[in-house]
Amino acid sequence: DDGWTVAGRRFTSRLIVGTGKYKSFEQNRAAVEASGAEIVTVAVRRVNVMDPKQPMLTDYIDPKRYTYLPNTAGCYTAEDAIRTLRLAREAGGWSLVKLEVLGEQKTLYPDMVETLRATDVLVKDGFDVMVYCSDDPIMARRLEDAGACAIMPLGAPIGSGLGLQNPVTIRLIVEQAKVPVLVDAGVGTASDAAVAMELGCDGVLMNTAIAEAKDPVAMARAMKLGVEAGRLAYQAGRMPKRRYADPSSPLAGLI
Amino acid sequence: DDGWTVAGRRFTSRLIVGTGKYKSFEQNRAAVEASGAEIVTVAVRRVNVMDPKQPMLTDYIDPKRYTYLPNTAGCYTAEDAIRTLRLAREAGGWSLVKLEVLGEQKTLYPDMVETLRATDVLVKDGFDVMVYCSDDPIMARRLEDAGACAIMPLGAPIGSGLGLQNPVTIRLIVEQAKVPVLVDAGVGTASDAAVAMELGCDGVLMNTAIAEAKDPVAMARAMKLGVEAGRLAYQAGRMPKRRYADPSSPLAGLI
Amino acid sequence: DDGWTVAGRRFTSRLIVGTGKYKSFEQNRAAVEASGAEIVTVAVRRVNVMDPKQPMLTDYIDPKRYTYLPNTAGCYTAEDAIRTLRLAREAGGWSLVKLEVLGEQKTLYPDMVETLRATDVLVKDGFDVMVYCSDDPIMARRLEDAGACAIMPLGAPIGSGLGLQNPVTIRLIVEQAKVPVLVDAGVGTASDAAVAMELGCDGVLMNTAIAEAKDPVAMARAMKLGVEAGRLAYQAGRMPKRRYADPSSPLAGLI
Amino acid sequence: DDGWTVAGRRFTSRLIVGTGKYKSFEQNRAAVEASGAEIVTVAVRRVNVMDPKQPMLTDYIDPKRYTYLPNTAGCYTAEDAIRTLRLAREAGGWSLVKLEVLGEQKTLYPDMVETLRATDVLVKDGFDVMVYCSDDPIMARRLEDAGACAIMPLGAPIGSGLGLQNPVTIRLIVEQAKVPVLVDAGVGTASDAAVAMELGCDGVLMNTAIAEAKDPVAMARAMKLGVEAGRLAYQAGRMPKRRYADPSSPLAGLI
Repeated sequence: DDGWTVAGRRFTSRLIVGTGKYKSFEQNRAAVEASGAEIVTVAVRRVNVMDPKQPMLTDYIDPKRYTYLPNTAGCYTAEDAIRTLRLAREAGGWSLVKLEVLGEQKTLYPDMVETLRATDVLVKDGFDVMVYCSDDPIMARRLEDAGACAIMPLGAPIGSGLGLQNPVTIRLIVEQAKVPVLVDAGVGTASDAAVAMELGCDGVLMNTAIAEAKDPVAMARAMKLGVEAGRLAYQAGRMPKRRYADPSSPLAGLI
Repeated sequence: DDGWTVAGRRFTSRLIVGTGKYKSFEQNRAAVEASGAEIVTVAVRRVNVMDPKQPMLTDYIDPKRYTYLPNTAGCYTAEDAIRTLRLAREAGGWSLVKLEVLGEQKTLYPDMVETLRATDVLVKDGFDVMVYCSDDPIMARRLEDAGACAIMPLGAPIGSGLGLQNPVTIRLIVEQAKVPVLVDAGVGTASDAAVAMELGCDGVLMNTAIAEAKDPVAMARAMKLGVEAGRLAYQAGRMPKRRYADPSSPLAGLI
Repeated sequence: DDGWTVAGRRFTSRLIVGTGKYKSFEQNRAAVEASGAEIVTVAVRRVNVMDPKQPMLTDYIDPKRYTYLPNTAGCYTAEDAIRTLRLAREAGGWSLVKLEVLGEQKTLYPDMVETLRATDVLVKDGFDVMVYCSDDPIMARRLEDAGACAIMPLGAPIGSGLGLQNPVTIRLIVEQAKVPVLVDAGVGTASDAAVAMELGCDGVLMNTAIAEAKDPVAMARAMKLGVEAGRLAYQAGRMPKRRYADPSSPLAGLI
Repeated sequence: DDGWTVAGRRFTSRLIVGTGKYKSFEQNRAAVEASGAEIVTVAVRRVNVMDPKQPMLTDYIDPKRYTYLPNTAGCYTAEDAIRTLRLAREAGGWSLVKLEVLGEQKTLYPDMVETLRATDVLVKDGFDVMVYCSDDPIMARRLEDAGACAIMPLGAPIGSGLGLQNPVTIRLIVEQAKVPVLVDAGVGTASDAAVAMELGCDGVLMNTAIAEAKDPVAMARAMKLGVEAGRLAYQAGRMPKRRYADPSSPLAGLI
C-alpha cells in the first residue's frame, strides 16, 4: 500500500485522529504517536492553537510533523462553520479543512442542507474541504459535485462506538466516488475500523474510540493495526462466503 | 502483549495457519512467513511430511523454525484420529497435536461425542491435545476436564468464511476456560480475526481465508495485523457503546 | 391497537402495499386483499388509472373500498414529481399523495434536496404529502417542518429485500417525529416488517417483497401478520435482553 | 398451513408456551389463551400439578383442552431427568415429554452428553421425547438416531431474549432432520419468532419472552402472529436479496 492522496497531498497513514476528550495534551500526544496518524483534526472552537499564554496543543503535537486539519465541531449553521474556518485560515494558514455542520446536540448528526451550502461557499473561497456527512449516496455525490475533496460519511452517531451500521450505503458511496471516502464517526473498536477499510474506504477518522478507551495509547496502536489490516485484506481480495446450501433445497437463499 | 502459553510452550504470535489448499509449497511458505505464525498445522493424512522421495513441506517450512502442529483432518471416528496421531508421533516425534473428529463431509462440523472420547484416550496416552470443537460451552468444559490443553471452537463452518456467527457462546467459553481458547474455522477476512480476539480469545487458527484469498501472501499479512489489532483492542479496553436512548423513552432498550 | 391517523384520515391496517411488478391485475387484487391493506400506492406514470380503453387497475381494486395513494415513482426532479401529482389530482381528485424523488436509477435512492423542495411546493399547494426519504433524522425533521404529513424512510434500497439496515437511525426518526413514520422500501420477508414495527414505526409500505415472492398472495398474508405481530410486540413491551456477563468480568460489555 | 405432527399427534398451532415466571395462574391462563397454543410445557419439579390441596395449574389451564408437555427443568443429570419423567408418567399418564438436562445454572445451556444418554433410556422406556439441545447439527442427528421425536435447539441462552444467534446451524439442523425442529429458548420478541419460522423450523417454544413482557397477554398474541407470519413467509418463498453490486466491481461480494 503506497498511500492515498487528498487535495494533492500524499499520505501513508489511513488513520486520522482527533484531539478532544483526552485527559491531557501529553496523553493526546502519546496516542497520536501510537496511532501512526499523519493528520490530526482539531476543533477550532475548542482547542487552543492560538493563545500562547495558555497551554497549547502545538507544544505537544508538532504542526511541522503532523498535518493539522481544523474542523468546525460545534457549528450548527453554514455561516458559523464558514466563519470558523476563515478565522482558522487567517490565524494559521490552514486551507485543508474538515467541515462539519451539525443538526442537533443530542446525536451530532450532520445537517446536510447546511453542509452542502457551506461546502459550496468554502470551495469557491479556495478551501480544500473534507466533509463529514450522512451515509446518503446521493448527498455524497452532491458534495463531490460541489467540489468536496473528500467524503466522510458517519458509520454511526458521533461518540456512540456502535460500529459501522450500514455497510450497504458506505459501499454505494465508495463505488461511485472519485475522491477519497473516509468513515468518520461511529467506530468503537479495532474490528470496526477494519470493516470500514474492507469495504474499500480510503481511511477512517476517529476520536472517542481512542480517547475513551481504558488505555488510549494501546487503543491508538490497535486502531493503527486495524486500519492496516482492513486495507490489506481489501487489497488481497477476500475468499467468497459459502453457505453450503444445496441450490435445489427450499432453504437455499434463506440466510 | 507478551504472548501466550500452551502445554508449557511459549508463543508470541497468536495466529496459527494451515498448510492446505495452496497452489504450491512455495506459496504456502511465503504466506506462512507473511503471517508471522510460529505454529503451522498440518493434515497428517494429506501433506507429505514423511516420504523424502516426494516434494516435502518440510523443505519449504522449516520444522526447526516453526512448530508443526499435526492435525487429524479427514478423520471421522475417534479411532481414526487416535491412530493418525500415534503414527505422527512415531514418525516425527510430535506430541503437541490438534485433534479434529468430523461429523460429516458436507459441513465438516465436529462430532463432539467422538471428539471427547478421542481427547480422553490421547491425553492418557501422553499427548498435549488442542481440540477443534463446537461452540458449546458445556462441551468445552468437558474437553478441559478431560485434559485438553487448548479449546478451539469453530466460529463458522470450516471453509465457509462467514465470520464468527455466535459471539455469545464464544464469550461464555472464554469466560470459563483455564486453558487457551482459539477460534478455529469460519474466519473469512481480517476483521473477523479481530472480532475473535476482541472477545478475549487467545488466538485464531485459519487456513482457507488465506489460501483462497486472491493474494494469499497479502491476506496472510492482513490476518497477522487483524489478530494483533484485536488483541491490543481487547487489552486496551474499548469505550462503552452508547445508544442515545432517553431512559424514560418507550424506545429505550429496543435496539 | 385502534389504528393510526394520517392527514386526518383514520386507518386500522398499518400495511400499505404497492401495485407494481405483479403478473396481472388479478394477482395484484388477490394480494391486496390478503394483505388487509386499506391503502394501495399507485405509480401515476406506470399504472393505468385513467384510460378506460385499456385494462384499468380500478376495475380490480375498488377505489371506493381502498384509499388510492398516488406516488411519483420514476420522477428524478422536484418539477417532475410536482407535475405528476398535479395531474393526478386533476384526473382523480387525489390530494393524499406519496412523494418520491429519486436520485438515480441504479439504487433508486431518494434525492433529498429535490424531495425537500417538492415537499415545500406541494404542501403549499394543498396536498397532504407522505414522503419517501433517506433515514437521515435531520432531513426527516426538515420534511416535517415543511409540512409532510408522514415520514417514510427507506429500510434498505428499493427492491433489495435486504431488510432494515440501520435500526439506530429509524429509532431516532421515530423518537422525534410528531407525524406518522412508516418504513418504505427494503423489507424482504415478514420478520423484516415485524422489526420495523417493533422499533415503534406506525406502518410499513412494501411492493417487491410481496410481488416477487414465489406465492405473492401467501406472502401478502404473511406481511399482514408480521406487521400486526411487530405492532403488538411494541405495545406489549418486550423483555430486556440479558447477556449473563458478570459485571466484574473483563468481558462484560464486549458483546 | 395444515399443521404439523409430533409422535403421531396433529397440531395446528406452531407455538408452544411455558408456565413459569407468571405473576399468577390467572395471568398464565390468559397468556396461554392469547397465544393460541395447543401445547403447554410444565416444569414437573416446579409447578404443582399433583397436590390438590394447593392451587393447581390444571384448575386454570384445562388438561383436556391443552396438551401438557412435562419438562425436566432443573435437572442436571440424566438420572434426575429420567426419574422426574417416570414420576410424571405415573402420576399423570404423560408419555409425550420434553427432556432438558442442563449443564450449569448460570447459562442453563444443555449438557449434551447427559441429554443424549437420557434420550436413549427414555426412548427405550417408551416415552415420546422432544429434546432441548444445543444447535450442533451432529448432536441433533445423534438425538434423532436415538429416537427423539422432535429436535429443539436453543436460539440463544434460556431467558436471555437475545434472539436467534446462529441461523447457519439452525438451518443445517432443519435441512437434515426427519422429525420436527422447534427453536426452544432465546426468543425475545415477535420478530425473533418469525425469523425462526422463516428458517424452516416447525415451531417455537418460549416462556420468558411472554411472561416477562410488560403486558404478557398482549405479547402472547404478538408471538402467535409472529409464528404464523414466519411460517407463511417460509411457505410463500421470499424474494431474493439483491445488493446492486456490479459483478465486475472489486466490491462485489464484499457485503
